[in-house]
This record gives sequence, structure tokens and C-alpha cells, in this order.
Amino acid sequence: MEDIVYGRNAVLEALKSGNRTFNKILISKSVHPSEKINEIIDLSKEKGILFQFTAKENLSKYDEYNHQGIVALVSPIKFIELEDFLAKEHQNSRIVMLDGIEDGQNLGSIIRTCVCAGVDAIIIPERRTCPINSTVEKASAGAINHIDIIKVNSPISAIQRLKKSDWWIIAAEAFESDNYYDVNYNDMNFVLVMGAEHAGVSKSILKLADFKIKIPMLKNFNSLNVSNALSIIIFESVRQKLLSER
Amino acid sequence: MEDIVYGRNAVLEALKSGNRTFNKILISKSVHPSEKINEIIDLSKEKGILFQFTAKENLSKYDEYNHQGIVALVSPIKFIELEDFLAKEHQNSRIVMLDGIEDGQNLGSIIRTCVCAGVDAIIIPERRTCPINSTVEKASAGAINHIDIIKVNSPISAIQRLKKSDWWIIAAEAFESDNYYDVNYNDMNFVLVMGAEHAGVSKSILKLADFKIKIPMLKNFNSLNVSNALSIIIFESVRQKLLSER
Repeated sequence: MEDIVYGRNAVLEALKSGNRTFNKILISKSVHPSEKINEIIDLSKEKGILFQFTAKENLSKYDEYNHQGIVALVSPIKFIELEDFLAKEHQNSRIVMLDGIEDGQNLGSIIRTCVCAGVDAIIIPERRTCPINSTVEKASAGAINHIDIIKVNSPISAIQRLKKSDWWIIAAEAFESDNYYDVNYNDMNFVLVMGAEHAGVSKSILKLADFKIKIPMLKNFNSLNVSNALSIIIFESVRQKLLSER
Repeated sequence: MEDIVYGRNAVLEALKSGNRTFNKILISKSVHPSEKINEIIDLSKEKGILFQFTAKENLSKYDEYNHQGIVALVSPIKFIELEDFLAKEHQNSRIVMLDGIEDGQNLGSIIRTCVCAGVDAIIIPERRTCPINSTVEKASAGAINHIDIIKVNSPISAIQRLKKSDWWIIAAEAFESDNYYDVNYNDMNFVLVMGAEHAGVSKSILKLADFKIKIPMLKNFNSLNVSNALSIIIFESVRQKLLSER
């Protein structure tokens, strides 16, 4: 099995991470020279990875991707088991669980935000989630290589397992809930559960949640895009963490 | 001139706003019945707008759009002049200015966040911005009908004009700047300037800024998507506003 990784950021981050096995990297002869392309070439040489300058036409079979003249054939993302993740030491750790995110752009953008916010892992259910493919990797700007991704069969069982290890469950929910900034995110390990764009977090998960939080709006418009909502909440936890360290 | 608006949310919000003239609405006979489709039909009847149920094939010329079986032919978005906007009364008002956002998905998503956050207007330069088209309208989930959009020839002149009327200029910039949560957003009219995904806010605008702010990251990864960065900053101003009203 081989994945296609395309675009400068995604290829560079996959290279840097050291988590992927590269088969080869194809670079269009007509690509604009740039610092990132040079960094990719230098890293490939250093790691003994085959790279080829090739005529633009030879990349045409990848034209369904917005590849910016660079395509890499790479081993798939490695997932980590929940038990292996829990076996690490955790203090004020944070997990984001996605409950039914089906849009690849959103998923990629969420992963990027999670890495910037120092989130420790992302839990994704096997079903009702878009596949982790090239689109997701590109939309994450390669961030997907820098965070533990845990795939689970049953989100419910995962939450029950986490609760047993004293993780707190926080679910984002539009109604009857606390404002997200009234929760103290410090001094606990927590799982923030974000629901699908339309359906929200499923009822069975809401029942298990220790906190239900909402983002208060100043205008009564349907709702935020899920990746923006996640960014607002998770960076509130970053704000609180940085303020507590002053 | 006529715009195509497609998808349930975008068509419904364009209808609700009352700001657009509808030529007609085409609904695929095979569309799944839903509350939103019913609302669209009821509103069309109420406003005397022509709607047609049509065979799926007749919508095929719109298949480049992800139209979910509904397409409307509508007058373009109306822009507002900066002077007309400034003539209104402003107290603790907020403008978002976009400096070179070229991705339609990002632009749509930013507009949606701005509406949820109660932002008063969005300023978009004529050049170096993607056109306000169907993709943007769809990505905004129709939010674009619920906020003043100001197109300007020169962002610099617009900023100088705003400064004359005592608006404060806040530019998002990754380096050498204050943390975004250390600014007091209350008690002033402000313009938040967000830069392009790669280039950031242009130097000439940074020179005019009263505050330069950054989002501190917990992991040194390249950066946030611009729409997520905007969401984090603008909802910090919402948080401060709501806390000050307690």
C-alpha cells in the first residue's frame, strides 16, 4: 500500500517527520525554485531517498491533485493504538475526538490546528469519517505527520476506557451548555469531542460527557464551520495554559 | 449580471436576507425532502419568486457546483461604500479587513465566522482577492447575505480613512508582536487585518497598525490556516465583550 503525498508543505513535513517510508519523489522540471523545494532536495539526499526531476507531462496522471509540481509516493500514515497512547505519561494532556467529520478539507484543517495547539492525539472512529487520504494530508499542510492519530471501532468504548483512566470528557454542543470559556482546562487530562457539521455530537456520547460546552454567538446565524469552532475552543485551553504559567 | 447560488443553506440565506433579486429557483425532482427545502418553497411563494421542480438532467449544466439539487439565479451580492458604512453610528464596532486572501473556501469560511461573531463589516481589496463567487457564497453557508461587504481599491487609503475616524488598526503578524489575548478589544472601534496564507499582512499595512498581535503556538509548526486564525482572534474579542457585560 502506498499513499500519494503532494504539494510542498505536505511532502516536506512527511520527510521531516521521519515517520514515513518514501518510495520516490517526483519533481516537475518546470517547478518554481523555492526554499522549500531546496529543503526537500537536501533532506532527500541526506536520507538517501530517490528523487527525480521529470517533465511536467509525466505528472499529468496526478493532475486531479493540486500538486504544485511535486508528488511523493510514500507509505501510509501510521496509526497508534489507544492502549499504547495511554501507556505514555500524561499530565494536562489533551485529546481531540472527532465524531463523524466527513469533509476532508475540514479534517485536514482540524489536524493542523491540533498540532499548533500542542494537542497530544486525535481519535477518529473507523466509520462515519472521511478516509485519511491525500486531500486530508494536503489540507493539514503536512501536520498529520506530527501528531498521534488513533483509529477506534467504537467511540463509546474509547470514551469509557478514557474515563476509567480519569480523562475528562468535554463535548461541544450548541444548546443547554456552559460557555466554552467558563471551563478551567488546566490541571486535568481531557478529551474534547467535536461533532459532525450538521448532526453534532451523538446523543450516546453526550450522555457520557462531564462538560457540555457551547460557543456563544453575537448574531443568531446557523453555526460555525466545525474546524473554526474547534480552533476557538482548543486555543482557549492554550490561552489558559499559557496564562497559568506566567 | 446574474449569480448562481447553490445548495440549501446558501439559497435559504439569500432568500431570508431580502437583499437579492431572484430570477428563479430550480429544484431537482429527486431532491430529498427536508425542512430547509420546505422553508425555501414557502419563502418563494410568500415573496412571489418563481420556483420550478425539474428533472435532475436539467441541472446537469450546474454539476460543476456541489448543488445538492438546488440552484438559484440571483442578482449579485451588493457591496457597500466605506463612506456609507462610516456614516452609520459605531460603538465598539468591529471590521475585518482581508489582505490578499485568494482561496474561496477560506474566504467563505471567514465570512461565516464574522457573521457568528457579530462583526459589522468585511473590507476586501479589489485586487489580490479571489472573486466573490458561488464557491465563496456556498462556503459561507449563505452568511455573506448578512454582513456589509466593502470593496476598496486601496487597502492603505481605507486604513488611513478609518484612522481619521478614530478606528484602531490591529494586524495579525507572526513575529515580534503581542499575544492576541493581551489586547483589550472593548471600548474601541477596531479593524482586524488578516493577511494572505503565505505572505501575511503587507509591510505597508503593518506600518499603519496600532497593534500587532500573534497567536502563540504550543508546537513549533508552520502556522494555522487563516480562517482558523481569524476565528481564534475574533472570538477572543467576543469573549471579552460578553464578560464585560456580566
